Amino acid sequence: MLIEGRLTRTIWLEDDGASVGILDQTKLPFRIERARLASPEAVAHAISSMQVRGAPLIGAAGAYGLALALARDPSDASLRTAHDLLARARPTAVNLRWALDRVAARVRPLAQKARATAAFAEAGAICDEDVAINEGIGRHGLELIEAIAKRKKPGAPVNLLTHCNAGWLATVDRGTAISPIYAAQEKGLPVHVFVDETRPRNQGAYLTCFELGEQGVPHTLISDNSGGHLMQHGLVDLVIVGTDRVTAKGDVANKIGTYLKALAAKDNGVPFYVALPSPTIDFSVEDGVRDIPIEERSGEEVTHVVGIGQDGEVARVRIAPERTKAANPAFDVTPGAPRHRTHYRTRRRAGVARGFADAVSRPRGLRRLLAAGRPQ
Amino acid sequence: MLIEGRLTRTIWLEDDGASVGILDQTKLPFRIERARLASPEAVAHAISSMQVRGAPLIGAAGAYGLALALARDPSDASLRTAHDLLARARPTAVNLRWALDRVAARVRPLAQKARATAAFAEAGAICDEDVAINEGIGRHGLELIEAIAKRKKPGAPVNLLTHCNAGWLATVDRGTAISPIYAAQEKGLPVHVFVDETRPRNQGAYLTCFELGEQGVPHTLISDNSGGHLMQHGLVDLVIVGTDRVTAKGDVANKIGTYLKALAAKDNGVPFYVALPSPTIDFSVEDGVRDIPIEERSGEEVTHVVGIGQDGEVARVRIAPERTKAANPAFDVTPGAPRHRTHYRTRRRAGVARGFADAVSRPRGLRRLLAAGRPQ
Repeated sequence: MLIEGRLTRTIWLEDDGASVGILDQTKLPFRIERARLASPEAVAHAISSMQVRGAPLIGAAGAYGLALALARDPSDASLRTAHDLLARARPTAVNLRWALDRVAARVRPLAQKARATAAFAEAGAICDEDVAINEGIGRHGLELIEAIAKRKKPGAPVNLLTHCNAGWLATVDRGTAISPIYAAQEKGLPVHVFVDETRPRNQGAYLTCFELGEQGVPHTLISDNSGGHLMQHGLVDLVIVGTDRVTAKGDVANKIGTYLKALAAKDNGVPFYVALPSPTIDFSVEDGVRDIPIEERSGEEVTHVVGIGQDGEVARVRIAPERTKAANPAFDVTPGAPRHRTHYRTRRRAGVARGFADAVSRPRGLRRLLAAGRPQ
Repeated sequence: MLIEGRLTRTIWLEDDGASVGILDQTKLPFRIERARLASPEAVAHAISSMQVRGAPLIGAAGAYGLALALARDPSDASLRTAHDLLARARPTAVNLRWALDRVAARVRPLAQKARATAAFAEAGAICDEDVAINEGIGRHGLELIEAIAKRKKPGAPVNLLTHCNAGWLATVDRGTAISPIYAAQEKGLPVHVFVDETRPRNQGAYLTCFELGEQGVPHTLISDNSGGHLMQHGLVDLVIVGTDRVTAKGDVANKIGTYLKALAAKDNGVPFYVALPSPTIDFSVEDGVRDIPIEERSGEEVTHVVGIGQDGEVARVRIAPERTKAANPAFDVTPGAPRHRTHYRTRRRAGVARGFADAVSRPRGLRRLLAAGRPQ
């Protein structure tokens, strides 16, 4: 999508074929900076420090991290060490492990000298598939937006609410939750997006506002506390969020606070959808509330805020008394079926299940639908 | 309560008898500053700029504002003008109008030369009654904490969650939602408080953490997004919040985001209580979602954050792209009976209904209970 009017992706193989370029997302929206990663350690650091973030993008970055490790040392031991290092960088995201396992499975049978090239090719394929999955999500989600637009006055915008950033910056391109919004914009449907600030990392304020602004999509920033009030007053037609991991029964791990928005949507009859790329589904877990590990991040992310000061420089301010301690669970789990009667609609095409999950309406299990492979 | 170990109130009549002292709460927790207000205009500004905030404290400040107006000009016109000016400073808080009406009713029959003295006396009485009401709320809420403590392992702390600041800083003294916590502390019961940051004004981070820290109550700051996750995992025994206005059927207007916490409490079977001083009840309104005006504050409160910079100076940073617009509804309404089956327990003693509202459990109307005046 666009940055300063130019098409770009969030991650790419550099021209040297031996390093990976990324947009440094810790600098957005204040600075547009790119960084070059040349080792698996640099990739692991980019993931844990959130220079790259968003489940699909983390998966792609992890895949490149393994390729960089194999370029340095193509041995089985090197593969194992790099796999462990990269998997630990973000325990909640199942895409990361999925991408690492996929690259490892691809290269393990090969002669050592062939491994690095194959790993770079596999990482590139993961990137291209991510874009294809997201375009599929966009087409699927567009149907929802079109159906709502038909019920509104002609020309009235469809009002969406999204939490955190599951836009193109969270993926290789197009985004998950925001992909349908871009599809609607390209089709000329009027849309307007309420963007949750998403404390403590402010990724809604920093990233979603940035990418919607660059793309010219009308949007309004709100505090995380405001969504329930807006839904009560009929100001939100549709909630779409991304996800870091979805369990077999449809429990949805996503950025902390997603669960509160799902509850508000349910209480007010607002459709609540999870834009769900198939690699985020983890069939090894049923009960997400019990079994998905939730990353506890530094309390300083809560007690401090980073922004642009009045002098135009990036500054960090403390917003609590000096001795205040903070807890900082980074994700939460929105229970799926049967409690919130999750219904997942999926489509298989070219081997890719394009998920779009409705955590409100109908009581269906996810595994059964995917096993059947029937469009719903 | 304590600031730097010294007992203080949030508002007081200065020794000159012609001006009012306040703690300037816009400076907390970074600076402990007091301010002197000598006119109704200064009081209105103190309310709208949140130098004084919290429904009970705003009521007390408004009362003093009328007294200051009458000291300058005791005419009926002066009374009317000041009443209008002060009432407009915070439309959501019913206490403010209640206090203004009370002072006006007290002075209107008097000769003009007697009005100012009577108004100052009435404002002082409103302050003392607020403290008495809050001590009553503390005793009533302490019973809840004691009951929970009895079900826990001996010595295990009772974990409370509160949103925004309804502590002593929001009142003349003792607080509403936090009054029971201070009562528990004074009784030697172990308590621990999860404090919502409460964006966009950060009043949990700034004020609740400050006052709990000064008083030595163990507490942990969390992002507003975290409460649902904590409740899901059994980490919260009790939610207590304050309120700016409660309708006849029990709808609760309070700081934006309260509604989301009520939904999470309901979904997880966590008791959710509203600490309710009787002057916040507005019998003229039934449907709070439809009929309570919600103040829309400046979007800059969302796009910018104030804190202490690394140089130790107060600084303001922008957290969104420069052109980002924000919406900023400052309050929301948590529906009461019958939707959330509100049950209000009230006690009348010395003419004061000491309310403690349970917005979860039983379907009772508020008006009926208060009219009957029976302890429940």
